This record gives sequence, C-alpha cells and structure tokens, in this order.
Amino acid sequence: MQLDFTKADGLIPAIIQDASNGDVLMLGFMNEVALAETQRTREVVFFSRSRNRLWKKGESSGHILKVREIRVDCDADSLLIRVDPIGPGVCHEGYRSCFFRGLAADGAAQVIESRVFDPEKIYGQQTQESKR
Amino acid sequence: MQLDFTKADGLIPAIIQDASNGDVLMLGFMNEVALAETQRTREVVFFSRSRNRLWKKGESSGHILKVREIRVDCDADSLLIRVDPIGPGVCHEGYRSCFFRGLAADGAAQVIESRVFDPEKIYGQQTQESKR
Repeated sequence: MQLDFTKADGLIPAIIQDASNGDVLMLGFMNEVALAETQRTREVVFFSRSRNRLWKKGESSGHILKVREIRVDCDADSLLIRVDPIGPGVCHEGYRSCFFRGLAADGAAQVIESRVFDPEKIYGQQTQESKR
Repeated sequence: MQLDFTKADGLIPAIIQDASNGDVLMLGFMNEVALAETQRTREVVFFSRSRNRLWKKGESSGHILKVREIRVDCDADSLLIRVDPIGPGVCHEGYRSCFFRGLAADGAAQVIESRVFDPEKIYGQQTQESKR
C-alpha cells in the first residue's frame, strides 16, 4: 500500500511500542528511506528532524530496537512499530520510556518512572542533540 | 512545563492508548488550544490537519475518548494520552484500533483485526473527511 508522506514535509510519525508488555516507549518520525531501512534491517531507523538526517536508534547508545511487527493506520499516515528493545531503556535521559512524565491539568510535569540507567555512562560527554 | 509546538507547524502528535489493556488505538495531532480543551473537558480534542479545525473525537460517532492520564516525552514534543474509550472502536472504518493492518516487508498491507461495528450505521452517508 502507498503511505501518505505528504502531510508533514515527507515525514510520518512512528509510535514505538514494547511488544512484550504494550508499553509505549517513544515516538519518532520516518521518511521513506528511514522506513525502507527499518524494513530491510529489522532495526528501527528514524529521520531526525533536529539533525536533518537518518538516525538509527541506538547508534551511539547500543539501545537498538528490534522490529517485531509494523502496523499502519486507516489513513496510511502513521505507523505503529512493535519492538523488542535492546538495553535497559530507550530514553536518552535514562528512562525505560521517553514518556516518563505525567502532565497535570495546570501544566506541571511530574516524573512518574524511575531511572534505569545513568545517561552519563552511556552517552558520556555528547551534546544533547547527539544523545540518541 | 513548556511543550514544544514549533517542530510541526504548531502541532504535536498525541498517541492514544487504551488505559485498560495498553493497546494503541490511534494517533492524532494537537495544537495548544486542542490540548487545553482536552485538559479542561477530560475528553480528547484533536486539531484536524485535513479539515484545519478543532475536532473532538467522537463528535459524530459518539465514540469519545475519556482521558485517564496525559504523559509528555523527554523532548516535550509528543504526548501519550491514556484513555477509556467509549463505544466499540475508535476507527472510522469500524475497527477497535486505527492500526488494524500489518505492513509486510514488500509494502503489502494485511488486515489483522476484525471489524467490531458497521461504519455505515454509525457514520451514515457522511463524507470520508467528516467520519470522525
């Protein structure tokens, strides 16, 4: 089927879900090349909007995402990728999921998960942008 | 906390997850007003990119999404909204989840869920665009 890459400058959002327990781990964007690479290698490759290039998840941390299944939505403009994550967590801040904060009605954010690794040990002195 | 609405023309993606079982039901986009309305009413309101206006999920179908919890990711540019969905399914094509198709390596899509309602009965003769 033809995916619709026209709605967001050639990109579509890809939800990453842990296939073993259903937890949503992160959301990234893919262009056609990133999706093709993900399908070819069976490891998740995004297109980084901030760095404007392909970004293999885990390229610096080793925390790669092994693809178990790719699903597409009714409008063919979003992906749900069910994965087996390698390593303790996907988030460059040291959490299992990037969605580690709850957002209260007043806009305050509160950390609701525990850190599972020390990001300094994994990412070292990299810049914020390259901690992926 | 300040969310980052600058990366996609004032919109951020919002993943909708069934709080009762972890299933990912759909993905929509929100602008600041849609998020504020969602927080105020505790029912999900998106910004429709195709219709260029606020879109309360379930406004025509009755299949509204009751907010249980809102989470925000590390970069503050994506939301995960855990909901109690009202009705048999969220998809305008009659499925429980919009992600009812698997995408094979060759690009072929295959329906992997069963229809749970007849979209003609719920949405009637509405145009494709307004079936929400």
